[in-house]
Amino acid sequence: MIYLDNSATTKPEASVLKSYEKVSMHFFANPSSIHSLGGESEKLLHQAKGEAAKLLEVAPSEIVFTSGGTEGNNLAIKGIAFEHQHRGKHIITTAIEHASVYEACKGLETLGFDVTYLPVNQEGVINLNDLQAAIQDDTILISIMHVNSELGSIQPIEEIAKISKRYPKLFFHVDYVQGLGKVPLSFKDSGIDLCTMSGHKIHGLKGTGILYVKDRTTLYPLFHGGSQEQGIRSGTENLPGAVSFIKALRLILEKEKNQRYDLIQMQQYIRKELEELPDVFINTPLHAAPHIINFSVPGIKPEVLIHTLANHGIYISTKSACSSKQSEDSRVLVGCGLPKSRATSALRISLSYMNTMEELQRFINILSKSIQQLKNVLG
Amino acid sequence: MIYLDNSATTKPEASVLKSYEKVSMHFFANPSSIHSLGGESEKLLHQAKGEAAKLLEVAPSEIVFTSGGTEGNNLAIKGIAFEHQHRGKHIITTAIEHASVYEACKGLETLGFDVTYLPVNQEGVINLNDLQAAIQDDTILISIMHVNSELGSIQPIEEIAKISKRYPKLFFHVDYVQGLGKVPLSFKDSGIDLCTMSGHKIHGLKGTGILYVKDRTTLYPLFHGGSQEQGIRSGTENLPGAVSFIKALRLILEKEKNQRYDLIQMQQYIRKELEELPDVFINTPLHAAPHIINFSVPGIKPEVLIHTLANHGIYISTKSACSSKQSEDSRVLVGCGLPKSRATSALRISLSYMNTMEELQRFINILSKSIQQLKNVLG
Repeated sequence: MIYLDNSATTKPEASVLKSYEKVSMHFFANPSSIHSLGGESEKLLHQAKGEAAKLLEVAPSEIVFTSGGTEGNNLAIKGIAFEHQHRGKHIITTAIEHASVYEACKGLETLGFDVTYLPVNQEGVINLNDLQAAIQDDTILISIMHVNSELGSIQPIEEIAKISKRYPKLFFHVDYVQGLGKVPLSFKDSGIDLCTMSGHKIHGLKGTGILYVKDRTTLYPLFHGGSQEQGIRSGTENLPGAVSFIKALRLILEKEKNQRYDLIQMQQYIRKELEELPDVFINTPLHAAPHIINFSVPGIKPEVLIHTLANHGIYISTKSACSSKQSEDSRVLVGCGLPKSRATSALRISLSYMNTMEELQRFINILSKSIQQLKNVLG
Repeated sequence: MIYLDNSATTKPEASVLKSYEKVSMHFFANPSSIHSLGGESEKLLHQAKGEAAKLLEVAPSEIVFTSGGTEGNNLAIKGIAFEHQHRGKHIITTAIEHASVYEACKGLETLGFDVTYLPVNQEGVINLNDLQAAIQDDTILISIMHVNSELGSIQPIEEIAKISKRYPKLFFHVDYVQGLGKVPLSFKDSGIDLCTMSGHKIHGLKGTGILYVKDRTTLYPLFHGGSQEQGIRSGTENLPGAVSFIKALRLILEKEKNQRYDLIQMQQYIRKELEELPDVFINTPLHAAPHIINFSVPGIKPEVLIHTLANHGIYISTKSACSSKQSEDSRVLVGCGLPKSRATSALRISLSYMNTMEELQRFINILSKSIQQLKNVLG
């Protein structure tokens, strides 16, 4: 199997699953129980939080364990919206966010919030002047993704944070789900108030994640209850999930440090090979995350190519998995101004550190043959 | 170890964890990915949903996989509140709900909702006339728990549902977290619109659960995004968690059918023995769930007894784990009209089908000696 759909989800690391199992069986007590068995779970939870904080260079009180990226994004956006709506009901985001941000904003519009969706250029990047011009007196939140999941384009998070910092009443949320472990981002003194991370995109387990919540950022909880997770996210802690997430985080950050160049080389190889194929257009800009390459083969339905490749044990995707069954064209690619023929024929390869150059050579070989065959049949 | 804190959380069944591991490794693809690997995950997800529906005798479209009880309760309550607020902003609940219901209602009050907290009698049960009298033209939701987690008292869910059914615009939500697998509840034609279940209370895994959502019940999603789970709960499905939940559900329902009498016998034994101990007051009413016994030992701080028992490897608790660190007395016991001396000295034993009569004999023996010793020291 050659799995090149790592932006949809990744295969869990065996050692991460092992951590989960161990904690499930040996630390099953409720960290909120006051007996010593509960105390041991509580201690492990604190350790996990401390470890996460160390890896991300933030304070333990800024770590909120969640059930994943969609929860993190919704908690950040709705949490700010509901909590700070008396100060204003205006939110700024972009036209190319992941569905969990985009639809959360659409959902808030139905409750009377006002959302500005910043446009992007052909490279999938916003214009800072547009952002600056969009900020109003009643703006309470800017929510902008780091790495785009379909295209791999990277937003200028540091610059956005600098602008946001000038408005003390404005919170800045970053969807870091695709960037984590591939494109470094620093939190400390960054101006980022909220940042979403997901476990299953970094060879961790599904149902796990972290929302970074900068100290003194108040959120209306989506889950009220026993006041776990600093009162921001109630519910019996998924301790095995939390510990497994830390394990996955440690591993991916080590790889980001030591193997990032391998990823870049693999991406460059694919780009070079794709450029040589006739009728193939590369949509991912040159300055992009090292694990995503989006390309179009106009005239061939992407699902046909996907199924052809799958018959050879090669798995790639169209757009974001979370929007893949919804409509014909990609909101993201249309947002970048691509013509319809390219926006409806786009394919995405997304790499992980587990992929090898041999796999990619085989992929290019089969892809090239498949396109040729399909063109012959169709032509 | 004698673990008698099963209402806080349970030890996962080894076979449940095994299911989780298998699905994590072999069905890791995103069910939303359109390639065949994603298709296999999607098929398994449908199977899981079908199996859950069969076990609960509902339709597959009525099953929403969640991250647990707190999410289920919050999604039901806020989902109805935000979605139907144009019709009215009045909610009815009780004074003795779990924190995830009670605090969700308190949270909605800060957003302009109006909540009636029905009182309960000394047995911890509401009066149906009170409920009937509380229903207003603008009431959109009744949220009442099945089995109380601290006391074991059972609300007359069938009768409440009958009343609720007379108001077609009114939704009825049941927190079934403590009752599942111990006190049967039927959904079909019951008048229940929403019902919360949690995995880790039935020897399943933390971070898993189901919200039953009756067809045609519309909710404002807490998680917007890729429209997974019938659009009610977006986010990449935690497929291993879902499959493990079904496994745990099947096992607990079998036990409920075949071993419920063992639980009743164990409870009767404890009740009889506690009744014979001097200075011990039983708070759990005679008509109660078979796994919970709440009792008070006035004059002895419950945490002292808990720690003494823990030194003998016996684990019991005070009130609900989700409120155990928050205040001195129990909102639930105070709600039942117990005097302060009893409300502040309450202890809870909560059984599982894994407990044995021998364990309980040892527990009673150690408890009786511990009370005697503490009384001697204090007296």
